[in-house]
Amino acid sequence: MGSRARSARSAGLLFGLCLLLPSAARGQDPGAGAPRARDLGIPFQGVPGPLNAITDVEGVRVGHSTIIEGDGPLVVGQGPVRTGVTAVFPRTGTSEPVFAGWYSLNGNGEMTGTTWVEESGFLEGPVMITNTHSVGTVHQATIEWSRNAAALNPDAPGVWWSLPVVAETWDGRLNDINGFHVRKRHVFAAIESAAGGPVSEGSVGGGTGMVCNSFKGGIGTSSRVVGSYTVGVLVQCNYGRRPELLIAGVPVGRELLGWPPAGGRENGAGDGSGEPGAGTLENQPRGGSSIIVVVATDAPLLPHQLKRLARRVPVGIGRMGGYGADSSGDIFIAFSTANEGAWTQEGAGLSMVSNPRMSPLMLATALATEEAITNAMVAARTMTGRDGNVVHGLPHEEIQRILAVHDRLEIPR
Amino acid sequence: MGSRARSARSAGLLFGLCLLLPSAARGQDPGAGAPRARDLGIPFQGVPGPLNAITDVEGVRVGHSTIIEGDGPLVVGQGPVRTGVTAVFPRTGTSEPVFAGWYSLNGNGEMTGTTWVEESGFLEGPVMITNTHSVGTVHQATIEWSRNAAALNPDAPGVWWSLPVVAETWDGRLNDINGFHVRKRHVFAAIESAAGGPVSEGSVGGGTGMVCNSFKGGIGTSSRVVGSYTVGVLVQCNYGRRPELLIAGVPVGRELLGWPPAGGRENGAGDGSGEPGAGTLENQPRGGSSIIVVVATDAPLLPHQLKRLARRVPVGIGRMGGYGADSSGDIFIAFSTANEGAWTQEGAGLSMVSNPRMSPLMLATALATEEAITNAMVAARTMTGRDGNVVHGLPHEEIQRILAVHDRLEIPR
Amino acid sequence: MGSRARSARSAGLLFGLCLLLPSAARGQDPGAGAPRARDLGIPFQGVPGPLNAITDVEGVRVGHSTIIEGDGPLVVGQGPVRTGVTAVFPRTGTSEPVFAGWYSLNGNGEMTGTTWVEESGFLEGPVMITNTHSVGTVHQATIEWSRNAAALNPDAPGVWWSLPVVAETWDGRLNDINGFHVRKRHVFAAIESAAGGPVSEGSVGGGTGMVCNSFKGGIGTSSRVVGSYTVGVLVQCNYGRRPELLIAGVPVGRELLGWPPAGGRENGAGDGSGEPGAGTLENQPRGGSSIIVVVATDAPLLPHQLKRLARRVPVGIGRMGGYGADSSGDIFIAFSTANEGAWTQEGAGLSMVSNPRMSPLMLATALATEEAITNAMVAARTMTGRDGNVVHGLPHEEIQRILAVHDRLEIPR
Amino acid sequence: MGSRARSARSAGLLFGLCLLLPSAARGQDPGAGAPRARDLGIPFQGVPGPLNAITDVEGVRVGHSTIIEGDGPLVVGQGPVRTGVTAVFPRTGTSEPVFAGWYSLNGNGEMTGTTWVEESGFLEGPVMITNTHSVGTVHQATIEWSRNAAALNPDAPGVWWSLPVVAETWDGRLNDINGFHVRKRHVFAAIESAAGGPVSEGSVGGGTGMVCNSFKGGIGTSSRVVGSYTVGVLVQCNYGRRPELLIAGVPVGRELLGWPPAGGRENGAGDGSGEPGAGTLENQPRGGSSIIVVVATDAPLLPHQLKRLARRVPVGIGRMGGYGADSSGDIFIAFSTANEGAWTQEGAGLSMVSNPRMSPLMLATALATEEAITNAMVAARTMTGRDGNVVHGLPHEEIQRILAVHDRLEIPR
Repeated sequence: MGSRARSARSAGLLFGLCLLLPSAARGQDPGAGAPRARDLGIPFQGVPGPLNAITDVEGVRVGHSTIIEGDGPLVVGQGPVRTGVTAVFPRTGTSEPVFAGWYSLNGNGEMTGTTWVEESGFLEGPVMITNTHSVGTVHQATIEWSRNAAALNPDAPGVWWSLPVVAETWDGRLNDINGFHVRKRHVFAAIESAAGGPVSEGSVGGGTGMVCNSFKGGIGTSSRVVGSYTVGVLVQCNYGRRPELLIAGVPVGRELLGWPPAGGRENGAGDGSGEPGAGTLENQPRGGSSIIVVVATDAPLLPHQLKRLARRVPVGIGRMGGYGADSSGDIFIAFSTANEGAWTQEGAGLSMVSNPRMSPLMLATALATEEAITNAMVAARTMTGRDGNVVHGLPHEEIQRILAVHDRLEIPR
Repeated sequence: MGSRARSARSAGLLFGLCLLLPSAARGQDPGAGAPRARDLGIPFQGVPGPLNAITDVEGVRVGHSTIIEGDGPLVVGQGPVRTGVTAVFPRTGTSEPVFAGWYSLNGNGEMTGTTWVEESGFLEGPVMITNTHSVGTVHQATIEWSRNAAALNPDAPGVWWSLPVVAETWDGRLNDINGFHVRKRHVFAAIESAAGGPVSEGSVGGGTGMVCNSFKGGIGTSSRVVGSYTVGVLVQCNYGRRPELLIAGVPVGRELLGWPPAGGRENGAGDGSGEPGAGTLENQPRGGSSIIVVVATDAPLLPHQLKRLARRVPVGIGRMGGYGADSSGDIFIAFSTANEGAWTQEGAGLSMVSNPRMSPLMLATALATEEAITNAMVAARTMTGRDGNVVHGLPHEEIQRILAVHDRLEIPR
Repeated sequence: MGSRARSARSAGLLFGLCLLLPSAARGQDPGAGAPRARDLGIPFQGVPGPLNAITDVEGVRVGHSTIIEGDGPLVVGQGPVRTGVTAVFPRTGTSEPVFAGWYSLNGNGEMTGTTWVEESGFLEGPVMITNTHSVGTVHQATIEWSRNAAALNPDAPGVWWSLPVVAETWDGRLNDINGFHVRKRHVFAAIESAAGGPVSEGSVGGGTGMVCNSFKGGIGTSSRVVGSYTVGVLVQCNYGRRPELLIAGVPVGRELLGWPPAGGRENGAGDGSGEPGAGTLENQPRGGSSIIVVVATDAPLLPHQLKRLARRVPVGIGRMGGYGADSSGDIFIAFSTANEGAWTQEGAGLSMVSNPRMSPLMLATALATEEAITNAMVAARTMTGRDGNVVHGLPHEEIQRILAVHDRLEIPR
Repeated sequence: MGSRARSARSAGLLFGLCLLLPSAARGQDPGAGAPRARDLGIPFQGVPGPLNAITDVEGVRVGHSTIIEGDGPLVVGQGPVRTGVTAVFPRTGTSEPVFAGWYSLNGNGEMTGTTWVEESGFLEGPVMITNTHSVGTVHQATIEWSRNAAALNPDAPGVWWSLPVVAETWDGRLNDINGFHVRKRHVFAAIESAAGGPVSEGSVGGGTGMVCNSFKGGIGTSSRVVGSYTVGVLVQCNYGRRPELLIAGVPVGRELLGWPPAGGRENGAGDGSGEPGAGTLENQPRGGSSIIVVVATDAPLLPHQLKRLARRVPVGIGRMGGYGADSSGDIFIAFSTANEGAWTQEGAGLSMVSNPRMSPLMLATALATEEAITNAMVAARTMTGRDGNVVHGLPHEEIQRILAVHDRLEIPR
């Protein structure tokens, strides 16, 4: 996966390296050609799929609705608005439920519908992700959309009632979260734009206003190929404090403490100062730092096996220095697109991966989670939100410099 | 399975008994003086509190907002409307969180906020109960109400974000559930009307359009005194099929199979025919049969102990013949009003009931659940809803007659 | 709480009824022709299989090793001994693991191996049941037996290591439990005697020294036929206090308070006096009252669905008046004999019962649990154990009399 | 914590560094003066307590019984023997239970007693750790020891029955595990030797025959000081494969693939070849790779909060490259020595750490787990066991060399 930049330690060469890269680190929004973590030379274990995205799992579709409006002081109900909705559909061309399981590392957050996922072993619709205070709007709009869809197709499940899965993280540092700016039309737009192919990352959809490890966070994705199977991960990351941040195992966060802190103070999750765990017990403000993780696979896993996958997400978070702080809503759902027909048929030919063969899928989940978080932070560029709060994008060149010092920078492919 | 060793009883005595009772069985809505289960002579174990209601637990407040509009054929968005919202507040005069725990017997339903209850051990606001498709509206309105309340009291928790607890059962048999008729004003009304004292039962609040064991269901409540402590229970009951119904351990349901069935067929939970478990495997329609149970106590129980209480609710349901069918969202939350200050202080004087002394509280939970369900069914009178669907109230005199035959009728106090 | 609307019945008729019955109520040990609960006219819901036993599930085998030695005062290490071992094997002719799930209503007990059952979804060997302090001996002996079996068949799983499932209830009221009288040979005997066909009930195997609802308890079994499937239940019952006992929904326990109490006092679970939940909070002695329940089915249920079955056991216990008291180790495991090959193959034809069709299986689990407990109590006859402690068998005729008064006695088939 | 060896990259200096160290890397057993991970310059976050051991938590005592006998070919029942028992007592001078919680990352293992820990919130005795097939012996011997202790002190709990907590990992690669060589006397020896102060690490006690990341594993410990509180961790580590091993975030494992593999093949957990997750799905042999973790703290955490601590252990494992493979029994228990009296009293002054202040304790748990694993691997020296199987100790100098290349070696204190 590229030879190591093992002996390259001169700043000159490093700057040279960066010249090879797209317009990273200029603070612009990501787009076509924007670098991802591997483009910067950040090393990861394992083999990604063609898109290195959750959509490498056949049939999975992702849609975003991004809402960015206004600037200046917060006026509740008016803005500024930095929020959105992301929809992840397990399948294309069918609304048939998929086997699923879930887990929470630290449950200071919401993912509706999980009680039924746990009981039934099925995810019956999309996974919707938004901000904390728009869960209600997205919940009801998703029901309404299901009702409308069902009206067109009377055979579809979910006609009579539904228990949508809606997750959230808190974007109140940048967004007028109490203004409830997500509307039904945004929910429908996210749903209707859901598609396979490359997935937009960074400050898009539900991830628009998020902050991660005191830098700009948001949506990220990655995948791993394991034999004939694929594991894909999508995160909406909003957790962590700068001093704890590891990238590729290197404690880059504490070398970035002099970098401008994330603005605002209510969240308290990313002021870039202090080092929890290092002898202090300071009462951290109740923030909304969180991470939602969606794990998709085409491996035929049964519900209890999908729960096992979901329970490996903390391993990936741990590799990034995260640990599920008290203020964090770290909630994960995993589903399998295999075993189509499980919902309706009896006696038919379901299959499962034998337990001993699950280990590589478990490791793949952890590794793809690690890379998806890094991708989110690499993609998300500096954003100014309500009250002029500024949250900086991860400084690409500085990360490259630190990795190089630690002999962990890989020449981009 | 063999004929009964039945001895004859005179109808005269039975009718005589009924003459002693209030205006039960006339099919009218409940109100002051309406009979409760004990008034009919239905026997229960244990000693209730003064109100035999959840509000016997000091500080607990209950509010209802009942929405009944229109008649005739269903026109989605117009009605008829038979729904509402119920709010249960743990404390009076403070919004301080309480220790809490939860459990689900069969999770085909929603109770938002439970992931954080499990993680934190606290319930931070009211328990809101409504219909399945109004969870979103109630969720957002509860946040908005919290925000407004916080604006008046900057010291209150929940200012910056909140994870409301909103539960539901399905009322689509009588109500235009896809019309989303619960509005913010109804939520605020339920919250603002919350008060101690006697609790309205039957077709009120979130319970307005519910069906239980193929009879009219809804809200019911009961309490038990255990030493110096009180356990109170409030249910929104919408579960079960007639053939399974037990009252005071007597299989009254199968003796009521000739009674008019509940109208409508989507729900499929109470058509009064067939006997599941008796040799058939018929595919039951996906219904919305469910029961939400709120358990309150002033006993100083820690969060893991409150989860133990919540896990005893199925014992009470089992005594009624229920068993958490697949289509049922049977979700329970228990909280303790003791240990005020737990949320904020450290080192202060928390107390707990030692585990061996919990047994009577566990039994009390089961017994109060049994009685609360019975109270809901006794209070709820015949209702006609959308498309002219009729759901009959439990026939009081017939229940008395059956109990008398089984030597289980007690002379009302 | 009001006098009963009781009508007089002649004792003559009742005694006449009993004359029709087998030699029940003579206090002798059960054996061929000994009455079971249905023989006494106790009514139950649902249709049992041919044996009304867990062995109605094809392939399930049960073996007992009963150890009864000595009389008189307790001398630790010498006796008296009233204990044993019961083995339940899911399959005949193969040691291949079966899908399984488990649940605990009140975890004051031990069932080893459950962490792996939960994780893997498989039960890999027999379910062993013994007394609380012989778990260690049974655990190690089961491994040794597996090792020996594997030596004969090198293809068998479990060669290299194993995590046996060993459950227990406490028999120290009758048995020298601290004498560790269960030896390897007893474990092997239980395992090797495991067979299909009728199952001995009452004071046999692991159930030898048990006490249930202040009467003699032990092993009981029952089954239900649900369409083309069978659900079988085996219990080792040692829980409960007399005042709470319901049979067929009738509160028989409180009518039996004048009956001789169970001897001994350490257990404290069945002295026949007092009524917990009725206003007292007395500190109950730490007893070992417990119930282990094994649920078997040939319905093709996946692991998460088997957990759902296990979670219905409390419904059956609740119908008997039990509620999982703090001192009780109420632990349940459910397995499916279907889907042979799931352990080894991938891609092969597994099947599952669709969730909506599970409801009758859930109810069957509750009903078979209720009947299995009753069968255990009906079969177990009066026993005198250590220190001359006497625990009386359930008085059959008295139960019949009480049921008849309540119009709940059915003429035996 | 020492300045970094930032510019020191010459092999000469590195070897020079090692000359400053004790007899590390010579393959001898650890002892007084043996280096620990920090002595080698391996960097860790956070501030350890004076002993950097679980015994930094006041009152916690650890005892080991190590059994090493014989050499040469395996003769089941005769040896060679490489096993033992470790006992961790929460308190000194009292057998009073402590608040506790537990969690399993991957439950392919045993920790008896957890069902009661979960239900009651208490750990009532020591945590015992041994090999997989000696759980039975240790279970029964612990009961016998409790009984003997109770006979001396009739006021002690656990007189009448007990549910010991016994955990295990699999040492069959080096040890005659099917010979059941742990005897009652070894259990008593471990219990009676339990003491505060420095804790022996590496191939001692239950950890004697363990293998970790394809190197010699065993017992390790570490601690963190968080404000006025201490978190201590003890591990028995036997998990993982060499390619995945990270130390201080550096992927050292894959640079050590040329190092001699661990001998034997049944375990299959550490042959040093292949790279799971890198595109292969090979069926891993069912091994016994596992890690048991005991977390102790003097912070006043309630049971549900201790479960939160236990759930952070996977974060520490993840930082080491572990992920809870299918063959692994990764089971964790956390207890608090605070709130003495919680077991018996009611209404008395319990205290708790408020949830937001728990974050540093969570991070400390992850960090101390990471260091305890590293300490176990650093302390455990090369061992030859049954059939001449050799498992090599971690090569200290090579680790230092690799860390230095990655600018992660810190000058030892």
